[in-house]
Amino acid sequence: MSDAEPASGAAQTPGELPADPFADPVYREAIIDLLGGLAYGELTAFSRLAGDAELAPTLDGKAALARMAVTEFGHYERISARLRDLGIEPHAAMDPFVVPFDAFHDRTRPTGWLEGLVKAYVGDGIATDFYREISAYVDPATQNLVRSVLQDVGQAEFAVKAVREAIAADPRIAGRLALWGRRLVGEALSQAQRVAVERDALASLLVGGHNRPGADLAELGRMFARLTDEHTRRMDRLGLSA
Amino acid sequence: MSDAEPASGAAQTPGELPADPFADPVYREAIIDLLGGLAYGELTAFSRLAGDAELAPTLDGKAALARMAVTEFGHYERISARLRDLGIEPHAAMDPFVVPFDAFHDRTRPTGWLEGLVKAYVGDGIATDFYREISAYVDPATQNLVRSVLQDVGQAEFAVKAVREAIAADPRIAGRLALWGRRLVGEALSQAQRVAVERDALASLLVGGHNRPGADLAELGRMFARLTDEHTRRMDRLGLSA
Repeated sequence: MSDAEPASGAAQTPGELPADPFADPVYREAIIDLLGGLAYGELTAFSRLAGDAELAPTLDGKAALARMAVTEFGHYERISARLRDLGIEPHAAMDPFVVPFDAFHDRTRPTGWLEGLVKAYVGDGIATDFYREISAYVDPATQNLVRSVLQDVGQAEFAVKAVREAIAADPRIAGRLALWGRRLVGEALSQAQRVAVERDALASLLVGGHNRPGADLAELGRMFARLTDEHTRRMDRLGLSA
Repeated sequence: MSDAEPASGAAQTPGELPADPFADPVYREAIIDLLGGLAYGELTAFSRLAGDAELAPTLDGKAALARMAVTEFGHYERISARLRDLGIEPHAAMDPFVVPFDAFHDRTRPTGWLEGLVKAYVGDGIATDFYREISAYVDPATQNLVRSVLQDVGQAEFAVKAVREAIAADPRIAGRLALWGRRLVGEALSQAQRVAVERDALASLLVGGHNRPGADLAELGRMFARLTDEHTRRMDRLGLSA
């Protein structure tokens, strides 16, 4: 199954990754988790955008959202190919993430078009920022793949325009959507915590392993501050208070 | 708006299309209808397959159906490009088909995974056969486009395998699914009739226009017999009586 069996356990200079980080089985497991979570995220993003397309009030909006869904599926295919290169079937890598991701989506099912757009923009925004932070701690090939699939497929501009127009037409909806945004963050944090507890290897990417450097407590604090700031900035762009 | 204004009204040899059939405004309107209906059909096929993907019992099934949805969207994009070449926005060409197609889908909403697969295979099968029949009466460029987007994206094999396996595991479901197949055909015919009545130009593709040949009554009869035979063959492949 594996093309990267553990080889040596030589101590490394702190601050950089070993020459072949995949020689460390914990690192390999962590990357498979990272890519598995990302793959399932892309697959659910596909489903969600396709579902939002059905709610779109115009045919052009429908086609635009379907096009974004298709781009997300392309990302899924690239991550799947990489997982197969690492000797694991995509479904096996995605499996541990099905329950927490589905729980998040079940608890944050949009009741309409605008809630769907806020969720796509705000929810994916937080996930994207988080993956980008974590990608600072991985090998260059994984980093390139992760960063390239995180590119915005056009939801941001689409959502901001539609939500701002809707608020301009009826300012009363801003309060309800702001509450919705807060609920999304709460549910995302609760599921992320669950993943962090259950997936030791993945968590070790961030906090470091026995021969890999990670973030210290001060850096973790700065990371959470960055995630929060970016979330506030997105809510602000939508015309909503965070 | 148009890149194919009416030019001459010269009489044509019966049995073949004029050299520039788009010079006839009724022909141009008919092709825009044909492509508009096909485009909206592809867009709804995308949505339906994406929705079926969510119902899939395995992650591999989910990805397989999402992949088919993506292929259908690629067809939509090609038809849209051709509509723009003909000087019309895709949403305008699709507009007349939204009500009848949505009515069909609202009345045949699958209540589960297997009904969704039967609908994808049997419903798309009839639509595909019908478009292929009509493509005998159009110019070569339109014919090539229509026939290329009608290619099966893999649903057939996928649906046949899953439905046969399900019937093998529980033979009682065959009766319910056979009834479902008959209901699909009934609803499809009722909406097709509505389209034929409302869209004169489109109907004239089949029955002929003032300087275009069409099918005579005997040929129309043979066409319906072919459509029925193919439907029966598909139900049979699923292990269902038509």
